[in-house]
Amino acid sequence: MSEQTLIVSTQSHDYPIFIQSSADKVDLVSRLVPFIKGTQVLIVSNETVAPLYLSELTQGLKSHGFMVHDCVLPDGEQFKNQHSITAIYDALLERHFARDCTLIALGGGVIGDMVGFAAASFMRGVNFIQVPTTLLAQVDSSVGGKTGINHPRGKNMIGAFWQPQCVLADMATFRTLPDREFAAGMAEVIKYALIMDDEFLAWLEDNAEAIRAKDGAVLGQMVYRCCAYKAQIVAADERESGVRALLNFGHTFGHVIETHQGYGNWLHGEAVAVGMVQAALMSAKLGLIDHADVVRIKRILTLFNLPTVAPAIDTQTALGLMGHDKKVQQGKIRLVLLKAIGKAFVTADFELSALEEVLAETA
Amino acid sequence: MSEQTLIVSTQSHDYPIFIQSSADKVDLVSRLVPFIKGTQVLIVSNETVAPLYLSELTQGLKSHGFMVHDCVLPDGEQFKNQHSITAIYDALLERHFARDCTLIALGGGVIGDMVGFAAASFMRGVNFIQVPTTLLAQVDSSVGGKTGINHPRGKNMIGAFWQPQCVLADMATFRTLPDREFAAGMAEVIKYALIMDDEFLAWLEDNAEAIRAKDGAVLGQMVYRCCAYKAQIVAADERESGVRALLNFGHTFGHVIETHQGYGNWLHGEAVAVGMVQAALMSAKLGLIDHADVVRIKRILTLFNLPTVAPAIDTQTALGLMGHDKKVQQGKIRLVLLKAIGKAFVTADFELSALEEVLAETA
Repeated sequence: MSEQTLIVSTQSHDYPIFIQSSADKVDLVSRLVPFIKGTQVLIVSNETVAPLYLSELTQGLKSHGFMVHDCVLPDGEQFKNQHSITAIYDALLERHFARDCTLIALGGGVIGDMVGFAAASFMRGVNFIQVPTTLLAQVDSSVGGKTGINHPRGKNMIGAFWQPQCVLADMATFRTLPDREFAAGMAEVIKYALIMDDEFLAWLEDNAEAIRAKDGAVLGQMVYRCCAYKAQIVAADERESGVRALLNFGHTFGHVIETHQGYGNWLHGEAVAVGMVQAALMSAKLGLIDHADVVRIKRILTLFNLPTVAPAIDTQTALGLMGHDKKVQQGKIRLVLLKAIGKAFVTADFELSALEEVLAETA
Repeated sequence: MSEQTLIVSTQSHDYPIFIQSSADKVDLVSRLVPFIKGTQVLIVSNETVAPLYLSELTQGLKSHGFMVHDCVLPDGEQFKNQHSITAIYDALLERHFARDCTLIALGGGVIGDMVGFAAASFMRGVNFIQVPTTLLAQVDSSVGGKTGINHPRGKNMIGAFWQPQCVLADMATFRTLPDREFAAGMAEVIKYALIMDDEFLAWLEDNAEAIRAKDGAVLGQMVYRCCAYKAQIVAADERESGVRALLNFGHTFGHVIETHQGYGNWLHGEAVAVGMVQAALMSAKLGLIDHADVVRIKRILTLFNLPTVAPAIDTQTALGLMGHDKKVQQGKIRLVLLKAIGKAFVTADFELSALEEVLAETA
């Protein structure tokens, strides 16, 4: 098995995710060709990924007759801002790109989110293709159509829902992905098992060695299953009014860590890993799952080199970062918790003291 | 008749345009209330319109229990840029606006386009309402969902398709609209007659005195018909691939004047008025309409204080501004021409010499 294809259904159109387990580069480029509208292509990448893959992709597309330009941005969440979007607009307009052009996002989730928003807003919407080069981007941000940038006052405050024409996920890119980034992506993989499918958790446990060894065929199956889980949720709830909230399992707790420690010190996936442990502990405290389930969750996270213990954060500070303001008192905190491994739900029906205990115990 | 309602159908949702011919302000505000989502409202206006209507609208909405803030931008096309959009984002985030907020565009087409794009991109899309205060905005930019801003390299290069929840067009606003702005709006009104309905041209001729006297009932009928014409075209072609191009009648010629003279020296509607004369002359030169039709078009434009003669522009310069580049030679110039008054079509089937003659004769 060298390729699997998943079709994602959205309100605007259906698109394929091609999951490649072998590394025949010529085939990869030709995969993209039918999805490129017009002849003008702008590949947007970052300074880390561009040296690895940009030249090959550019030459491959040129050999198919496309006019290919590129825009290489600095690497990092701190550059996911209006300035980078403006750099993309400028690259497009300097080269006289017309409405029937195609943008290609070559990089991780930051590049994907930014290129998606640039595509959504250039000339009121042009085509784009995702070539995610991190595990996190392959299993999370390349499905669902969320695009955007950060604002000094909040993450992802500016953006649009905009779907790609296709996504190409190549397992070979993990050979150049730093171990810490790979582990961070595994946090989201494990998340799908915890919220959607206990059988998938057993599969991850059984295949841990092959995954850690970057076995292409096993990784291909893993990515396919994650994209399918997310596609299933997104198809039911494209604009995030209901079940899509389950994808935030571990994220409310994780957000506290990311914000308190400063973005970039903890990777998103690392914070989510600890957040999932906290959410599981909260579920156990409410009698929803057994403590043995919590132990199993900690074990699989540890197996993939992810943290399970939060940094020291004062409990009231943590509550404040969760949106609980004693002065305002508006709205209760809503959490995604587990009824069982593989069954998540959203609830605000718990005592604040229980949450305080979990925060105190895990810090 | 003090109010007419037109329902506009779009791919995302249907929305009403309320066309008010009397001036009962309390009624106007209560009209908007059912279309405001959440409790947080940001009214965006400009320094010209805000002193006239902002306080009244703010107080009216507050009396219905909304939390109302405002963002007043400088007035003019030169401020239709990223900087103004950022000012809107900042106003929203400083006041902790959440996703279930509503933006209200109070002003002309520039404000409407910018607020629409801010609404399309804030938190990946929030609700907005249009309260257009110019004739041009009421008959043109408030229907069709086009939103956006300019880039130094081109007008409306950045934007999105995003539909309002409702539009409130109040004929009373024309009492404060400068005569030159009202005339510029009449160019677009006349355009609908020329491309869609010769009977409407006769109606405009018959009602010219009442229109010039700002008779609310007659203006209400006129605005209603224009919005209906545009809604009909847009419903058939929301993303501008086909018949929507007819709305550009006079605009290819007009664009030459606007660009050559510098934006702001000629109003858009003034340039379009002359552009429609040139397109009519081109149609007559190709034997499609009679010269008597051209005379009739000039007469109605003159009746509404619009220019019919282009400024002096070298013919080859004009062709260059129309996109005809002798070196590149890519693509023929496509023009919207008339088969008859009330029947427009798009064509590239003409000799360049005929176009050169028209440009030379009208400059």
